[in-house]
Amino acid sequence: MTRDPQFAGVIAPVLTPFGEDGSPDGERYLAHCQWLMAEGCTGLAPFGTTSEGNSLGLDERMELLEALVGGGIDAQVLMPGTGSCSLADAVVLTRHAVDLGCGGVLMLPPFYYKAASEDGLLRFFADVIEGVGDDRLKIYLYHIPPVAQIGFSLRLIGRLIEEFPDTVVGLKDSSGDWANTAAILAAHPGFAVFPGSEVFLLEGLRNGGAGCISATCNVSAAAIRHVYDHWQAGDADARQGEITALRKAIQAFPMIPALKALIAHYRGDSGWARVRPPFEALPAAQAEQVIRLLADAHNFRLDFAKAA
Amino acid sequence: MTRDPQFAGVIAPVLTPFGEDGSPDGERYLAHCQWLMAEGCTGLAPFGTTSEGNSLGLDERMELLEALVGGGIDAQVLMPGTGSCSLADAVVLTRHAVDLGCGGVLMLPPFYYKAASEDGLLRFFADVIEGVGDDRLKIYLYHIPPVAQIGFSLRLIGRLIEEFPDTVVGLKDSSGDWANTAAILAAHPGFAVFPGSEVFLLEGLRNGGAGCISATCNVSAAAIRHVYDHWQAGDADARQGEITALRKAIQAFPMIPALKALIAHYRGDSGWARVRPPFEALPAAQAEQVIRLLADAHNFRLDFAKAA
Repeated sequence: MTRDPQFAGVIAPVLTPFGEDGSPDGERYLAHCQWLMAEGCTGLAPFGTTSEGNSLGLDERMELLEALVGGGIDAQVLMPGTGSCSLADAVVLTRHAVDLGCGGVLMLPPFYYKAASEDGLLRFFADVIEGVGDDRLKIYLYHIPPVAQIGFSLRLIGRLIEEFPDTVVGLKDSSGDWANTAAILAAHPGFAVFPGSEVFLLEGLRNGGAGCISATCNVSAAAIRHVYDHWQAGDADARQGEITALRKAIQAFPMIPALKALIAHYRGDSGWARVRPPFEALPAAQAEQVIRLLADAHNFRLDFAKAA
Repeated sequence: MTRDPQFAGVIAPVLTPFGEDGSPDGERYLAHCQWLMAEGCTGLAPFGTTSEGNSLGLDERMELLEALVGGGIDAQVLMPGTGSCSLADAVVLTRHAVDLGCGGVLMLPPFYYKAASEDGLLRFFADVIEGVGDDRLKIYLYHIPPVAQIGFSLRLIGRLIEEFPDTVVGLKDSSGDWANTAAILAAHPGFAVFPGSEVFLLEGLRNGGAGCISATCNVSAAAIRHVYDHWQAGDADARQGEITALRKAIQAFPMIPALKALIAHYRGDSGWARVRPPFEALPAAQAEQVIRLLADAHNFRLDFAKAA
């Protein structure tokens, strides 16, 4: 197993904009993805938790992905979320992503039933891999126990790597528990481990981590990329401190609505703030608060000129 | 709001049989549903938790439902699960069920995000109802916090009934907490409340409950129906004691694999025992154990002659 270099770095779990009728807005979506790449993202992860991915329909997901590739985004930088409670739907989404040429997929475990055994989860992934039946498939496991409840134990990760060394190539660790990330890094050198927050970016890189896949890459990719590129520089800890402080300031607010409010503000496009139920948009006063707080305390602003 | 009489009684969340290739088996499925109706079910709830419903694909669910209606099952007795984390998929499944003429749908709340607000959940259902846009739609809320984590608070139930009195007409309470069921019954007379286990059938009926929707109706519908039909008879408590004891004996085993093992055994059809990952079939020794235990201690057997 050799680490797939294409995804090393800074990956944004792309926010999903919605139109007035509540449908995903392909035009805003493509523009956001182009801007994220211009800001320094090395990869894009559509349909993650931040993307309201599980609130989207099967067809909506496939159409959005096609809109990105059709719009000129290199499919090799795409790592769409294709996990599902449903084995059948996971196969449909994963096969579609592979057929489009996506460099990888980020897969949740089936998360409805809470008593899933290690053997049952292994079998789920084995069946998806067999169902897709394509050597190009590269799976990144999506470990996010605070939301999915069902996660990947160190033992299950080991069994998946052992059984599918050319297919199961990495993991996003959104446990928020550095000890867990460190344990995976120590157990599986060469396995591409991405902390789910830039808070652990530098510590991750110093321990063989592959970068980070983080919600806040939607608004601070450039600063995160700087830490990634210069992690051995003398000021790395200071720069890490800055991105950590910004992340912590943002996550004091409901994350998805807050990120959308920031983009809506700096794009001057109020429609960007829309979220899909069960989420609710940030109330105006709270949106104003996050914008001011970040501007005042972190000198934060977004510049969309370079993608125009 | 008047209670919809068609679903009052005994409803089975229908088990889903799979073929050798792992796909749902429409032929076994139809035969099982016909047998359940012959055994005394008043309604059928495909794609519930017991049905491995969330492990099925969108297309698989729609095809199975069409197989039932095409096979002669009266659509009015069907209450398929059409809830989804995805608003778009929930609309697709619900509209399909209404178009087929299903008497109702049993809807989970969107269960991926764990911090959903009451307003956000209300909006989700409002959007589904508007998206389906059909007066025939009758929604039964599916409250199962041990699995879905996200549930329906008494307040949210009240708001949904108030806003959609002709559409949100009932609830399945799989909390396992009789106090919760009793509180809903007391707060909303006329709302069709089904405990999620026959253990609470008699107590439910004495407090205005509508019957029960229970996993074990897949194997003991006749005895449960007897309690339902004769709940005011002198021996009602004794008969309730029998169905409670049987239920408790079965639920000491992994429920879904155990129910499938029982049907496989008494049908002499080993393929019936198949489950979809992340579930695992009951090991042979455990299957033998549940069959023997029920036969010896509860005089339990299944008779498929009448549906042949």
